[in-house]
Amino acid sequence: MDVWDGQKHIENDPAYKGLNVNKGVESLPSVNPDAAKRFLGRKRSKLKVEDYVKGILDGDVTILSRAVTMIESNKPEHQAVAQQIIEKCVPYAGKSVRLGITGVPGAGKSTFIEALGMHILNDGGKLAVLAIDPSSERSKGSILGDKTRMEKLSAEKNAYIRPSPSAGSLGGVARKTRETIILCEAAGFDTIFIETVGVGQSETAVHSMVDFFLLLMLAGAGDELQGIKRGIMEMADAIAINKADGQNVQKAQMARTEYRNALHLFPPTQSGWIPRVETCSALLDEGVDDVWHMILEYVNNTRENGFFKANRREQSKYWMFETINEQLKNSFYQHSEIKNELGIYEQKVLNDETSSFIAARELLDKYFDKL
Amino acid sequence: MDVWDGQKHIENDPAYKGLNVNKGVESLPSVNPDAAKRFLGRKRSKLKVEDYVKGILDGDVTILSRAVTMIESNKPEHQAVAQQIIEKCVPYAGKSVRLGITGVPGAGKSTFIEALGMHILNDGGKLAVLAIDPSSERSKGSILGDKTRMEKLSAEKNAYIRPSPSAGSLGGVARKTRETIILCEAAGFDTIFIETVGVGQSETAVHSMVDFFLLLMLAGAGDELQGIKRGIMEMADAIAINKADGQNVQKAQMARTEYRNALHLFPPTQSGWIPRVETCSALLDEGVDDVWHMILEYVNNTRENGFFKANRREQSKYWMFETINEQLKNSFYQHSEIKNELGIYEQKVLNDETSSFIAARELLDKYFDKL
Repeated sequence: MDVWDGQKHIENDPAYKGLNVNKGVESLPSVNPDAAKRFLGRKRSKLKVEDYVKGILDGDVTILSRAVTMIESNKPEHQAVAQQIIEKCVPYAGKSVRLGITGVPGAGKSTFIEALGMHILNDGGKLAVLAIDPSSERSKGSILGDKTRMEKLSAEKNAYIRPSPSAGSLGGVARKTRETIILCEAAGFDTIFIETVGVGQSETAVHSMVDFFLLLMLAGAGDELQGIKRGIMEMADAIAINKADGQNVQKAQMARTEYRNALHLFPPTQSGWIPRVETCSALLDEGVDDVWHMILEYVNNTRENGFFKANRREQSKYWMFETINEQLKNSFYQHSEIKNELGIYEQKVLNDETSSFIAARELLDKYFDKL
Repeated sequence: MDVWDGQKHIENDPAYKGLNVNKGVESLPSVNPDAAKRFLGRKRSKLKVEDYVKGILDGDVTILSRAVTMIESNKPEHQAVAQQIIEKCVPYAGKSVRLGITGVPGAGKSTFIEALGMHILNDGGKLAVLAIDPSSERSKGSILGDKTRMEKLSAEKNAYIRPSPSAGSLGGVARKTRETIILCEAAGFDTIFIETVGVGQSETAVHSMVDFFLLLMLAGAGDELQGIKRGIMEMADAIAINKADGQNVQKAQMARTEYRNALHLFPPTQSGWIPRVETCSALLDEGVDDVWHMILEYVNNTRENGFFKANRREQSKYWMFETINEQLKNSFYQHSEIKNELGIYEQKVLNDETSSFIAARELLDKYFDKL
């Protein structure tokens, strides 16, 4: 698994597509290759759980990154360390605003996150940007895709951008993201963005771990609704129609009216908040600060009426059950006997040689026998 | 659990609300109470697995009912018998058309099922009507609600109406329904309706066990879309707009146009079938036979292009995994240790005394230790 180790050099990475170098005019490396070699070759000292926790509580981003790498690792020994780190960080977590951001492809999510993020930093905030992308092999766990997408933010010391962990089951990726939130909060990040990459099932998972869920849309409503799964609009606390600039302004305003009408059809929210639809231009940084003030207004309102805390408690409960269910499945499907037999039974079921239930029963018997 | 034993007498059931008897003018029981007592008191002979299987293959509805009761029972000894019956019936199953029917409350589902069912019987078919209703306590496993809803059908010897099993987890109820389909098919029923009662999550489960998914709607499109969960329209192979009679005819035709436009927005189906929208009046039995012919056309088309069989195979595979996942959860949540501790941990998580993941981990450790 190719996860970011906090020390990877962009120029040395063959996956780096951010710069085109003309053939024959090779630029000098910006880092002394010998020094880099020595640096990369240096065996990293093993940290103890206390070192991780201290580093995180001190806001040390390198140590935070290494702890997140432990969370993302599937090795049992890493998982054991990760769980201890999380346990020690839990008392310091929970004090951030968690914002879920999703949107159709082309809605300009990266630009929007950059623009919104810069407002938060300018207000003195500390921002962590995480992503959930279980289905895609796009970034292969490398930070490069995300870092080059958000150049300005990634240069800021109060911003921490962590790419989606490499592909895995949605349950697993979601759990890891939620654990990463705890560490980021313990490290002092007071605003956490959870971005869904691509359009899929991840939105429900993200919705279940954030305080506010923002849906980013494009002007010209109608056809692009196709790109977004039904049910997602219903989860949104706000819709921001991006790219409301130039010739798009009027279209964006029309779209706003359409979405407002559509939102009216939904049942009232538990939070007492009436979902809003706003237009903005992340490119020109117009209206983005309004979106941020709206989110802060939501946080204030729901903290006052008690929903903010109640919702977090419900989410914690939900994740306890989700984690249990996911681990039960892992234990089964990762079992060596099951790994060997599953394909055979699957084929039998596909060929109508046995029923789904009998196949399931026999596999379960084998599993519980050998456990 | 109060499941139908095939011998319950309507008049003796306190839940029976179908008749109002004026106070002081008590009607004579239509059944000799002494005879009924003797009959009900008679100990039913225990059947062996072979007796069940023979009875089912002979089309004996009483024995079929008793086998379904075994499926619905949560007692391990009943489950063991049920699994053996199913195993023996699998080779004789699969030869029916499975039709899923869902619709908003008030769309006239019962009347529609009666009208459509009578067409099928008149064509020489044998029809089983099953229902999925995991959330509701409505029928409490009693057949009465369903039998009185479908008076004409329940009097027909080629129709078998089985109520939804009493409330339980959706996964459990769905698995039981799918197992019941196998027995009904082995008993010679060549058309199976699976009805969802109420509007909820059941639609996805039903969709995953039928060949054709019919959505019943009402005229006056727009507001009533609220009653139907987003995503359900996308699963429909056809929408029938019911109650297209009297002053409703024009409204129904307008609704048809609206739904047709809405269906255009969805991506093309895997089956190659373009979902249709038709109007009908189940009450006057107008257009209902057209719906049936449309379904038969679908079956012919998809049998020819191979989708029918491919879809069934995929469904079988899906149910193997669903069954495994459900049983893994059952094994955990029904474990005595977990039953004792789950509430305590839940409370700790709700009070922020521990994290979701640590609580999950500790519960899982206890479970796997004691297994």
